[in-house]
Amino acid sequence: MITNRKIILMNRPTGKPYKTNFEFTEESLQPITNKEVTVKTHYLSVDPYLRNTMRKEKFVGPPAPLGEVFGGGAVGEVVETNSDLFQKGDYVSGHWGWQTYANVEDNQITKLNAELAPISTALGVLGIAGLTAYFGMIEIGKPKAGETVVISGAAGSVGMLAGQIAKIHGARVIGIAGSNKKNCYLKNELRFDGTINYQATTNLKSSLQQVAPNGIDVYFDNVGGNISDAVMPLINSGARIPISGQISQYNLEKPELGPRIGMFLVKNNALIQGFAYMQYESHFPYALETLSKWIKDNKLKYKEHIVEGFENTPKAFEGLFSGENIGKLLVRI
Amino acid sequence: MITNRKIILMNRPTGKPYKTNFEFTEESLQPITNKEVTVKTHYLSVDPYLRNTMRKEKFVGPPAPLGEVFGGGAVGEVVETNSDLFQKGDYVSGHWGWQTYANVEDNQITKLNAELAPISTALGVLGIAGLTAYFGMIEIGKPKAGETVVISGAAGSVGMLAGQIAKIHGARVIGIAGSNKKNCYLKNELRFDGTINYQATTNLKSSLQQVAPNGIDVYFDNVGGNISDAVMPLINSGARIPISGQISQYNLEKPELGPRIGMFLVKNNALIQGFAYMQYESHFPYALETLSKWIKDNKLKYKEHIVEGFENTPKAFEGLFSGENIGKLLVRI
Repeated sequence: MITNRKIILMNRPTGKPYKTNFEFTEESLQPITNKEVTVKTHYLSVDPYLRNTMRKEKFVGPPAPLGEVFGGGAVGEVVETNSDLFQKGDYVSGHWGWQTYANVEDNQITKLNAELAPISTALGVLGIAGLTAYFGMIEIGKPKAGETVVISGAAGSVGMLAGQIAKIHGARVIGIAGSNKKNCYLKNELRFDGTINYQATTNLKSSLQQVAPNGIDVYFDNVGGNISDAVMPLINSGARIPISGQISQYNLEKPELGPRIGMFLVKNNALIQGFAYMQYESHFPYALETLSKWIKDNKLKYKEHIVEGFENTPKAFEGLFSGENIGKLLVRI
Repeated sequence: MITNRKIILMNRPTGKPYKTNFEFTEESLQPITNKEVTVKTHYLSVDPYLRNTMRKEKFVGPPAPLGEVFGGGAVGEVVETNSDLFQKGDYVSGHWGWQTYANVEDNQITKLNAELAPISTALGVLGIAGLTAYFGMIEIGKPKAGETVVISGAAGSVGMLAGQIAKIHGARVIGIAGSNKKNCYLKNELRFDGTINYQATTNLKSSLQQVAPNGIDVYFDNVGGNISDAVMPLINSGARIPISGQISQYNLEKPELGPRIGMFLVKNNALIQGFAYMQYESHFPYALETLSKWIKDNKLKYKEHIVEGFENTPKAFEGLFSGENIGKLLVRI
């Protein structure tokens, strides 16, 4: 008999999510039915977007239900199977959330080839983060050689990939992140052309002007708020602004005030587009093939921030909102 | 000897433009040189975007120079010619600004066929206004049958055409304008499906919810400011927002504060795009042919607000910013 540990959403936060929003429970796993498999979780994904599923109202997807397992992406190993498609020992990815085991239908999971790439990459560079960076940058940002691309949340899982994809296309890439440690990584390891520590600058706009003297052609935004306020006056004619996320706004109950952006858009014939990777589902195979090739050719590096232990998942999630991680945040079980 | 009367930009406004920004002068027109023609102005175009050319700094185009003729589009008649391309009596359109005559090079003007359409339409439905409405709605808004389209500045030259173009594509069209007179016109003459007088409502958002119970798929924005604040929380997933202008913001020196919009864009995978008709120059012939056909088929109506007398041009321009006109504002000389 397998004992499954689960993290249950107990109540919805006001402001920052906190560990008291969650409760740990245990249960004996039910036997699997036809076409189901039992997976044992190896890695859980911890992502900013999950904050938006904690809201009472719909936000992109439906609200996460109270009293049920919280979370999103996970990878693991098949330990029991009633499906022709999967054998014991197969590695798979899916969306079974924050639990140590799960019974899932065979059409809800994807088989992973552990020889091609570490299985954890299915939650990062070869999963949501990579696809989000790829489609936002390629389909909306469309960076051209010589253009200036600015990335907010540049040391996050999506931001660091988006910046490297822009560099592959010949752009000059400036990363905005919240610590010198993050920026050293972006400059020394990922060869970003410039970085700004927004926590250490008193005038973000003039710091940006210094590192982006020719203005900004693409702004890949993961953050919003004050950081975007500094970017908008510096955008060039024809600028493209993919919005992947707005982490600075996720803990607010209603929109805060900021300088209106309409005039910057009119003046520069500029485009802003909120997007989600799922909009581009039909292009997933080509995108994943391209990302894999870039990794193999050493053009694209990825970084994982791995927290050990299921019990530390809520704390790791809290840490996302104080900028503790560099790269993709995972919990290893 | 021809005496030319001219309206000169003397100083740049702070806030609303005013007649003291301009001075009337007279001069004798110089003889035309090779490939030039002398045109006698029949109609002058008076447009909101001209406010942005009064700024000290570049805004889309370069600033209008002090001490020189102000203005933009005009139509008139050739009265002298040194060009093989034009004969005396030809009607032409061009950008010679607010003056009663002008010597212009023959490659700077376009011949008009007065038998096909009144020459004034070259400044409106078959000119900048029509092309702006057409490209903004067709290329960015992309309304589908059954979708809800909201237009701000709906009784202006661009707005009323944009709304009708959306109706031609089968959308449900809601116009926001600033008087009951304007809204009666939109409803009774142009068959808009709903209208809101933003001057008469105390809660624009709830008024919008009433007339657009299924949410908003396309928001064609000419105005910005408080009006857009009410629209943004009501946009649907996949919404498209072409920004043609932001007249509520033109008289401000720097961006005012308003609720941030990033979260609405992320939540709905929505797109906002500032644009100018000139971006689509290669499609002008097809667009003008289509607009002409719609007019002929009685699917597209246009309205001109004609002010009589060159001397009233600055006053007419002032009136734009208090919402005096319905349709395209022209001055007849």
